[in-house]
Amino acid sequence: MTSSPTKWIIKNGTFAVSNSVQPVIRGYMVIEDDLITYIGEQAPPVEQDIPVIDGTHLFFLPGLVNTHGHAAMSLLRGYGDDLALQVWLQEKMWPMEAKFTSEDVYWGTSLSVMEMLKGGTTTFLDMYDHMGQVANVVEASGMRAVLMRGVIGLCSEEVQNEKIKEAIAFAKDWNGQADGRITTMISPHAPYTCPPAFFERFVQAAHDLDLPMHTHMSETLTEVQQNVNDYGLRPVEHLEKLGMFTRPSLVAHGVHLNDKEIDILAKNNVGVSHNPGSNLKLASGIARVTDLLKAGVTVSLGTDGAASNNNLDMFEEMRLAALIHKGISGDPTAIPAAEALRMGTVYGANSLFLDRVGSLAPGMKADFIAVNTDQAHFLPHTDFISHVVYSASAKDVEHVWVDGKQVVKHGACLTLDEERIRREAQLAFEGLLSR
Amino acid sequence: MTSSPTKWIIKNGTFAVSNSVQPVIRGYMVIEDDLITYIGEQAPPVEQDIPVIDGTHLFFLPGLVNTHGHAAMSLLRGYGDDLALQVWLQEKMWPMEAKFTSEDVYWGTSLSVMEMLKGGTTTFLDMYDHMGQVANVVEASGMRAVLMRGVIGLCSEEVQNEKIKEAIAFAKDWNGQADGRITTMISPHAPYTCPPAFFERFVQAAHDLDLPMHTHMSETLTEVQQNVNDYGLRPVEHLEKLGMFTRPSLVAHGVHLNDKEIDILAKNNVGVSHNPGSNLKLASGIARVTDLLKAGVTVSLGTDGAASNNNLDMFEEMRLAALIHKGISGDPTAIPAAEALRMGTVYGANSLFLDRVGSLAPGMKADFIAVNTDQAHFLPHTDFISHVVYSASAKDVEHVWVDGKQVVKHGACLTLDEERIRREAQLAFEGLLSR
Repeated sequence: MTSSPTKWIIKNGTFAVSNSVQPVIRGYMVIEDDLITYIGEQAPPVEQDIPVIDGTHLFFLPGLVNTHGHAAMSLLRGYGDDLALQVWLQEKMWPMEAKFTSEDVYWGTSLSVMEMLKGGTTTFLDMYDHMGQVANVVEASGMRAVLMRGVIGLCSEEVQNEKIKEAIAFAKDWNGQADGRITTMISPHAPYTCPPAFFERFVQAAHDLDLPMHTHMSETLTEVQQNVNDYGLRPVEHLEKLGMFTRPSLVAHGVHLNDKEIDILAKNNVGVSHNPGSNLKLASGIARVTDLLKAGVTVSLGTDGAASNNNLDMFEEMRLAALIHKGISGDPTAIPAAEALRMGTVYGANSLFLDRVGSLAPGMKADFIAVNTDQAHFLPHTDFISHVVYSASAKDVEHVWVDGKQVVKHGACLTLDEERIRREAQLAFEGLLSR
Repeated sequence: MTSSPTKWIIKNGTFAVSNSVQPVIRGYMVIEDDLITYIGEQAPPVEQDIPVIDGTHLFFLPGLVNTHGHAAMSLLRGYGDDLALQVWLQEKMWPMEAKFTSEDVYWGTSLSVMEMLKGGTTTFLDMYDHMGQVANVVEASGMRAVLMRGVIGLCSEEVQNEKIKEAIAFAKDWNGQADGRITTMISPHAPYTCPPAFFERFVQAAHDLDLPMHTHMSETLTEVQQNVNDYGLRPVEHLEKLGMFTRPSLVAHGVHLNDKEIDILAKNNVGVSHNPGSNLKLASGIARVTDLLKAGVTVSLGTDGAASNNNLDMFEEMRLAALIHKGISGDPTAIPAAEALRMGTVYGANSLFLDRVGSLAPGMKADFIAVNTDQAHFLPHTDFISHVVYSASAKDVEHVWVDGKQVVKHGACLTLDEERIRREAQLAFEGLLSR
């Protein structure tokens, strides 16, 4: 970890702030340890000798928050595209994932964390196996993460018991670790992979540990139909009945929802992680995002795993969210740029129950990024929020700070050995192929 | 213009070739003057002392072809987003465009050409006003372009006469200029902006000059309905009746088409420039791309102007084409990566009637690009075509050659003064605001 000064200031910067009247200001930001302590147009009364960063040609915004993914799956990027869902899962993903060792998870996660950090994502949710390895990568990288063992319950009771024990142990051991950068959740994989009684044990565990819950829900029409056939209820009603929504909850996808389900989600403050890239690529459908937002549901953005995206560029997810729902609804005012940016930042933080992340304001965690505005696609300097959402990409990110510490500088990761990660990830994939 | 050796070779490269069995090869490519003369896995019999470029960590592919746009509109990037179409046009675009001087067009076009070249686009179609300035920029930049004065006929007969004269003079004067890198077309703006008799004069001019034609067509439901109301025909039948399709033709958008119209386009070999980013952002609708392709229509990709996109990243248009039509159709095998790449390259070249552009093969023009594969989002090295379409962006482009001459090297434009263009484009926008 690179050491950073405890108090420093950015001058001549342009900042995205949470103010609907004036969403962009030029001025100053002061950081002390892990917190933002000042942001404004006027020079703050600080000591003359504190370190200064010149923000000219930089646009500072909150770090992006990726609310659903499986980082280790980057090892399967490009391994099976353009296939029918069941072929992709049964012939490509599952056989390879069954071979994943703890070391594969380590290098796959490292590859994803490196890509995300360099691309301006400062917080991610990860649901996978071998989560101790994921936590190790997060700790070393300086990134913030909300981690959970995702448990599939289609197995014997013995294996179920073992898995839930592991999920609980992980959630207990790692919650609050890495200087508080790691928090945990309880995560049965999905209603269609966890029988009701098994799912209820996760609800109980979440109560016991006072932790929030996360699951996949209503990604495809098939699984919704199966839920109705098996349990006589659509997934939202089913999860409500199992008690999930008595816990703070976030569901991933929520593509196929009826009005009643949207009402239930809104009433219970259940967040939805919208994964537009993955939903399109797997042809799962188009989530009713404008309806969800209108109902008051917190909709955030996730990349899902790199095998179904295929990158982890959250700028692209913000852009897809802003574009698709205009095209589908026929309303060019749907999901304006500022709303897409909130979905990629503060709504994401809210969805992960991180109160002090997701916006640039005094008292907030100093998780923020700087993009280079001195480029053709950021000109003219009309509207930086528009440029970030409609024109930018991961590679426009110049600097990244998490918890006040710089983790990316001039596009290079300060905390990770990039060359080694690239080499090991490639070797891990070759190993999976050859085993 | 930087001078390049007349004969040189790339070794250790990975290349996208037009071979459905083996679409990616590792090996060699030889360039002589403006042409590719060899590509293959075996070392070619060339002189030992010719210049060598080491292709390690580079993936070479045909330069991308952008088949619809208005380059100068980059001056309005981010000036009015998320607005209803008529508000956007009437209150934002048209008042500003009315103020565009020939110098504004020069700097706006320069900004776009710089963005496109650095992002791997080697050929673009441009339909605008002050086209002499556009041609000057193209000539200096080393890029390839198909240029045309786009004429709106909602004006007096005198002004109509003046405009058509100007369009014809431009098409005559510039066709084949810049060492053949510039070709021209005849372009009435759209059926709803050109009365039938006026439109027919363009058809006649295209016959007289033996040039192809281009127009906007069926971008919105409103214009289709207006066409039916005004002329009793849907736009495709209307244009067929006016004789446009007796010329080689390319239409932009083609969002709202019925089966009969698709048949007419296919029967007449009319190309369609699909502009997914712009169509989504303006909420125009979703073009029936899979049906068009199935019918045998050549579908290529365009960015449209930067005011409705908002960048000119053709990787993004390939990705959008591959993603949206999966999501809409519910078929994850729709528009696979290789087809999206063809839409962005060889189908584009075919649509612009450029026989020797759009693929890497002996006898083809040496218009090609190299992307850096030694990055997280290109790992593991599973499938480079997939990575280019689903994971890459403009900023992954490392080198660009047009007509055998290098125009971008390590991401920097060799032919244009980037800093001056950025400054002048910003000043041009400020000038438009203040006038």
